[in-house]
Amino acid sequence: MDNVNLDVVQGRNFSEAQVGALTGLNNYKFYHPLGKGRGFPGKLFLKEPLRMTGMEVSLNKLPAGQGVPFYHQHREHEELYIFLKGSGQFLIDGKVIDVREGTVIRVAPEGVRTWRNHSQEDLYYIVVQAKAGSMQANGIEDGVALPEQVAWPA
Amino acid sequence: MDNVNLDVVQGRNFSEAQVGALTGLNNYKFYHPLGKGRGFPGKLFLKEPLRMTGMEVSLNKLPAGQGVPFYHQHREHEELYIFLKGSGQFLIDGKVIDVREGTVIRVAPEGVRTWRNHSQEDLYYIVVQAKAGSMQANGIEDGVALPEQVAWPA
Repeated sequence: MDNVNLDVVQGRNFSEAQVGALTGLNNYKFYHPLGKGRGFPGKLFLKEPLRMTGMEVSLNKLPAGQGVPFYHQHREHEELYIFLKGSGQFLIDGKVIDVREGTVIRVAPEGVRTWRNHSQEDLYYIVVQAKAGSMQANGIEDGVALPEQVAWPA
Repeated sequence: MDNVNLDVVQGRNFSEAQVGALTGLNNYKFYHPLGKGRGFPGKLFLKEPLRMTGMEVSLNKLPAGQGVPFYHQHREHEELYIFLKGSGQFLIDGKVIDVREGTVIRVAPEGVRTWRNHSQEDLYYIVVQAKAGSMQANGIEDGVALPEQVAWPA
């Protein structure tokens, strides 16, 4: 279901891939389980190729004039939309939000959402999903700085 | 601890903020609990201002010539680094990865990591944290498309 053309380096504690410039995201196709085999270009999901266990992340390029043709909610997942380039509109529970570089929108599972690119330029954004209520500690509290001095290999 | 200068619109099922152009990220300061009140520019954490419950996300600008001066691990959180612009290097368990636009790196909690911008340009990236092992369904399975036709307010 996720894109399988991505070369991924798997290490003991990491996975790494070079997706390439965001302008080339349309080279990745997403195959929705209800899409009858038809690939949808411009959406690259990372959970499966990077073997992530706590989040789903997609990198997205939505061409000028296109919009998501349905509303959706989530069962358990909180979403964060991070807009990087271009402009468009986000519709959440009937409220319209103009989006552009630097717009960030958290949506609770129950939120009824859709979005569109009604501009003349491609719209770029990242969507993150994680299970609502799953994070107890914040990011800093969970981190552990090590005493060793940083040494970059020659 | 998180940046408090961000104007956030809070809705029933969402939170929204306009962070502005990523080149202006240095206008946000991050106050580390061990930083003795000294703000660290160029790192904006979103969990607290957006009231997120399942993830921590930071937007980052690392100036040319700077690096993270320590290694760190995590107790429970998986991390994903998404590089957007500029170039640099990521060091994970002694292995060096060159990073640029489109580099994505998942790190398990145990991974010993640091990174640097040894280039002549600013480096931009996003870091996502979520609790390792917390996501059962993938993103598509958790979503529910609604039957209503999309209607944008006039």
